[in-house]
Amino acid sequence: MKDLAIKLGIKIKERRKILKISQDKLALLTDIDRSYVGRIERGEVNVTLEKVYQIAEILECNAKDLLP
Amino acid sequence: MKDLAIKLGIKIKERRKILKISQDKLALLTDIDRSYVGRIERGEVNVTLEKVYQIAEILECNAKDLLP
Repeated sequence: MKDLAIKLGIKIKERRKILKISQDKLALLTDIDRSYVGRIERGEVNVTLEKVYQIAEILECNAKDLLP
Repeated sequence: MKDLAIKLGIKIKERRKILKISQDKLALLTDIDRSYVGRIERGEVNVTLEKVYQIAEILECNAKDLLP
């Protein structure tokens, strides 16, 4: 399932770059710890569904669009 | 975000019923604790994305189909 986390992280990073939002800003707006956002993007953590939805909201997309 | 967990739980339960799989069997096949499967279906837990994928695999559907 490591593959899942990595693919999710790539999608989040891609979407964040499109919107020109920094990791710091994403962390601030989602109220997720900055280092944790980095770990999510690198696929190092088994993220909760709730966090995916929080991130999707800030990235102005549907949570489903961030899933592999 | 409680709403999210509840909607996810309803979708999982619906899909499980369609396939006529018991909670016990779903728990066994996903290797998730039986009581935890019950809590997921009742929307009591903040489930990880990995578990949603494990469940979707056993329920022969796309994880995205289980999301609200």
